[in-house]
Amino acid sequence: MPEEKYFLSLSCRNRPGIVAAVARCLFEGGANIREAHQHDDVETGTFFSRIGFNFVRGGDLDDMRRAFAAVGEEFGMTWYMRPVSLPQRVLVLVSRFDHCLADILYRWRIGELNMTIAGIVANYPRETYQHHDFDGIPFDYLPVTRETRAEQEAQLWRIVEERQVDLVILARYMQILSPELASRLAGRCINIHHSFLPGFKGARPYHQAHERGVKLIGATAHYVTGDLDEGPIIEQDVERVTHQDTPDALVRKGRDIERRVLSRALAWHLDGRVILNGRKTVVFRD
Amino acid sequence: MPEEKYFLSLSCRNRPGIVAAVARCLFEGGANIREAHQHDDVETGTFFSRIGFNFVRGGDLDDMRRAFAAVGEEFGMTWYMRPVSLPQRVLVLVSRFDHCLADILYRWRIGELNMTIAGIVANYPRETYQHHDFDGIPFDYLPVTRETRAEQEAQLWRIVEERQVDLVILARYMQILSPELASRLAGRCINIHHSFLPGFKGARPYHQAHERGVKLIGATAHYVTGDLDEGPIIEQDVERVTHQDTPDALVRKGRDIERRVLSRALAWHLDGRVILNGRKTVVFRD
Amino acid sequence: MPEEKYFLSLSCRNRPGIVAAVARCLFEGGANIREAHQHDDVETGTFFSRIGFNFVRGGDLDDMRRAFAAVGEEFGMTWYMRPVSLPQRVLVLVSRFDHCLADILYRWRIGELNMTIAGIVANYPRETYQHHDFDGIPFDYLPVTRETRAEQEAQLWRIVEERQVDLVILARYMQILSPELASRLAGRCINIHHSFLPGFKGARPYHQAHERGVKLIGATAHYVTGDLDEGPIIEQDVERVTHQDTPDALVRKGRDIERRVLSRALAWHLDGRVILNGRKTVVFRD
Amino acid sequence: MPEEKYFLSLSCRNRPGIVAAVARCLFEGGANIREAHQHDDVETGTFFSRIGFNFVRGGDLDDMRRAFAAVGEEFGMTWYMRPVSLPQRVLVLVSRFDHCLADILYRWRIGELNMTIAGIVANYPRETYQHHDFDGIPFDYLPVTRETRAEQEAQLWRIVEERQVDLVILARYMQILSPELASRLAGRCINIHHSFLPGFKGARPYHQAHERGVKLIGATAHYVTGDLDEGPIIEQDVERVTHQDTPDALVRKGRDIERRVLSRALAWHLDGRVILNGRKTVVFRD
Repeated sequence: MPEEKYFLSLSCRNRPGIVAAVARCLFEGGANIREAHQHDDVETGTFFSRIGFNFVRGGDLDDMRRAFAAVGEEFGMTWYMRPVSLPQRVLVLVSRFDHCLADILYRWRIGELNMTIAGIVANYPRETYQHHDFDGIPFDYLPVTRETRAEQEAQLWRIVEERQVDLVILARYMQILSPELASRLAGRCINIHHSFLPGFKGARPYHQAHERGVKLIGATAHYVTGDLDEGPIIEQDVERVTHQDTPDALVRKGRDIERRVLSRALAWHLDGRVILNGRKTVVFRD
Repeated sequence: MPEEKYFLSLSCRNRPGIVAAVARCLFEGGANIREAHQHDDVETGTFFSRIGFNFVRGGDLDDMRRAFAAVGEEFGMTWYMRPVSLPQRVLVLVSRFDHCLADILYRWRIGELNMTIAGIVANYPRETYQHHDFDGIPFDYLPVTRETRAEQEAQLWRIVEERQVDLVILARYMQILSPELASRLAGRCINIHHSFLPGFKGARPYHQAHERGVKLIGATAHYVTGDLDEGPIIEQDVERVTHQDTPDALVRKGRDIERRVLSRALAWHLDGRVILNGRKTVVFRD
Repeated sequence: MPEEKYFLSLSCRNRPGIVAAVARCLFEGGANIREAHQHDDVETGTFFSRIGFNFVRGGDLDDMRRAFAAVGEEFGMTWYMRPVSLPQRVLVLVSRFDHCLADILYRWRIGELNMTIAGIVANYPRETYQHHDFDGIPFDYLPVTRETRAEQEAQLWRIVEERQVDLVILARYMQILSPELASRLAGRCINIHHSFLPGFKGARPYHQAHERGVKLIGATAHYVTGDLDEGPIIEQDVERVTHQDTPDALVRKGRDIERRVLSRALAWHLDGRVILNGRKTVVFRD
Repeated sequence: MPEEKYFLSLSCRNRPGIVAAVARCLFEGGANIREAHQHDDVETGTFFSRIGFNFVRGGDLDDMRRAFAAVGEEFGMTWYMRPVSLPQRVLVLVSRFDHCLADILYRWRIGELNMTIAGIVANYPRETYQHHDFDGIPFDYLPVTRETRAEQEAQLWRIVEERQVDLVILARYMQILSPELASRLAGRCINIHHSFLPGFKGARPYHQAHERGVKLIGATAHYVTGDLDEGPIIEQDVERVTHQDTPDALVRKGRDIERRVLSRALAWHLDGRVILNGRKTVVFRD
């Protein structure tokens, strides 16, 4: 039987003694630290850490949580402790373009993403995705118009609650969440969108990028906030383009960037490697 | 004696027969085509080409130019023909930060950049650059304030004219050229500046990028136009940054990107690989 | 109706007049050149070109082919002319790992790859790939052992012939083709394999790379020849790894590199952008 | 006055309690941990850590070292503790090609590399480097032939000892150190060399890479061991090349890769971010 691994993720106001207190608590509870990252944001005075551990002398997670609660209290920490193998429950929202969905499904299937897919919600009907094997994952068709937005979001929220969803992925969902829903999902809703140097506002961004003659196109995965496309960035990447690339070619290359950026952001989130830091994130990459 | 190589760079309205006419003219003038790139911008209906050739049957550049003039006339071409080995005359403008200057000087010295440095102009005095061996390159200290801008630009322009400058490089010059000067230097003045996803306006961009928590920083080399930082893009590149990077670290990494982006743009321009296409460029990369 | 586009791909011994003759023939046949790449390998004296064109004055492909045959004859060219939209017939060979297969199927489905999948052949049974929608593509289970190799390859070859296969893709097929079969498929069989700096021979290469502590891992797509893993390279790419990456993590990252390198090589081959040049290739990238 | 920062770098056999003991010792000595990286190599059972700290309650480095010695003893650690601002003493060895030297000198001058250059040793005379401002750095011309190798290395070693050199950089030195000298400099001599996928043995590697038609070329910075080009890898990078690149172009692009790979490896070594792990390294990148 492979030994169970755990991780602790925490943030708090920095002050002397945190690492010593955390390390002592883990040690006394029978844990061996296998991996540790920490970051001290000197501007905000905030301390972040992710610690991977296992039990070497008969320790137990429940006991450890109880013991650690005192440390968390002392330093005013936001923290959680999980078995690495415990999958998060993820809801995938998708629209007409299914390239990110296809990528996520494949990676989930072969075990790259430590999650249970609690559902797929689309504003297009099931037949749009007929070539995908959803393999028993619940599918909900929730069309949305300007008029039905509030109602559709209520249905969405019901699904989130009923299925105990830990994380919502906007896998090219192409709909803007209301500030209320965005706020309820703060820190547990990831979006992917195109990004350019320089940036472009408005419709048909790949066409704008083409007209501007950019030599790189990119994508950004970020947590959703009320401020569209402006939430804390988790991951970004770019690809080189040339004068030969038509707008269609930019869209095609954009698909590749979007899916790899989203899948990285997702994997890191699921592994507890991403911690919110105000408007930005601390990412302890693998 | 290594044989002399030449290149022809051209653009014109596209219509059938251009390639046939160009190829026949070169062939009849004794040239052998060694390398050819072409691009057809279907949106604007413009045709671009760069052709490298040598003479295999006793041809001669002057004769070829005369013969080609008829082709150029027929198709309404913008074109030029040059020996590859003929260096362009380049003026380098620099301010306090000398990382791009250092890089350009080194590459020029070892023969990577096919140019003669016609002068270095700085708004800081010579001692700022005391560790550089200017090796006889004329240096002009032209300080500039808001009040003396017009006069300083007049001096600059005199240098450009007197020294028959083909290309002006703003190697982190940190001064905005007046629309008049920018316009006079259209297509022969290259600037380098930082670029981000998303973009940031205003002062201290690396600090803004740090506050926003971006995961990539970049730089853009472009031709200077009246519209600051918005001219036709020649080259862009990025580098990965993390939550650990301080604003100073971003500035340091930015230096590396800036110098490699500028030196690539410069080398391609000098090789006749960059052709203007309205607000953008065609770049026949090496 | 969108106008039909065509391309001409050719190679021959270089000598003056090729471009002029080709351009004149295309022009006289009513074609307009939309895109052209050429390369002159000065070491071997070989000339390569790919020309995209359409008919602007009522031309016709069959007439053009007849007319071009004389040019091809005159210069001793290897050449072909195809409608861009005419899909090649592709046979995909796969083994236990299906990440490249999944990627190819998805890109084919959304129209990124201009091909008809003439069949999927695997040395594992159909249920191994149960989550994939083969959508009517013929599937053949051809298990192979050392003893049955010859017989299995005979079956494979029959499939290639009966289904008029233009291209065979070894999508992580994990079997070495016999020199005879490799030779019969010369220039129309693409393989993907891991690559490292430095290289490693023998079994479990990702484990070897891990033991050596490399900081980059990569993959190479190449044409298959009798000399395993040594055929003409079409495309390569790498990804950064660190001391934290376990051999399993290298394998996971390797999957991503393998699928993107293979899909690029495949797309370029299908677009006639790859031309053999002895032990290497000329790739007119998009 | 900006506060002084320090770092502790350590490795030892892993066992429970290391982090707790280290953190307690630092805390009790008045240190605040600002930054920490650790790595647990499960295959060899070795633990690695780099901890950045400052003193918040009147602590002192000498006292801390004394206190930490007991922890080091208890866990059998290899460790050192240094002020971040204390420069290492570096000897640069160079041969005919000076691109890495130029890069290192520039970065050192603008403060990117935390080192004192204790000397430059070349097997070419001073005039080879006449365009460089050595700025008072001692220069030694130590030509070497097969016959004088032993004697030359003795001179080299004398310089290393007399100038209390911490680190030797082979900045394209192009000479193979004897196993004896390599062994004496174990872990404190960094070399840079070209790398390819696949690798090439023997002379003129860029020409071999060109003949093989590779699509990527790269460079590797590694610690020197008796086994040439096979020491623990610190950093690697690659650049894309095409069929258009001549061997000369590969050499030119190789220069860029070599200098950026070497300068990164050097900066990380100087910051105590690189720890040896048998045949490989742990690199806590910035």
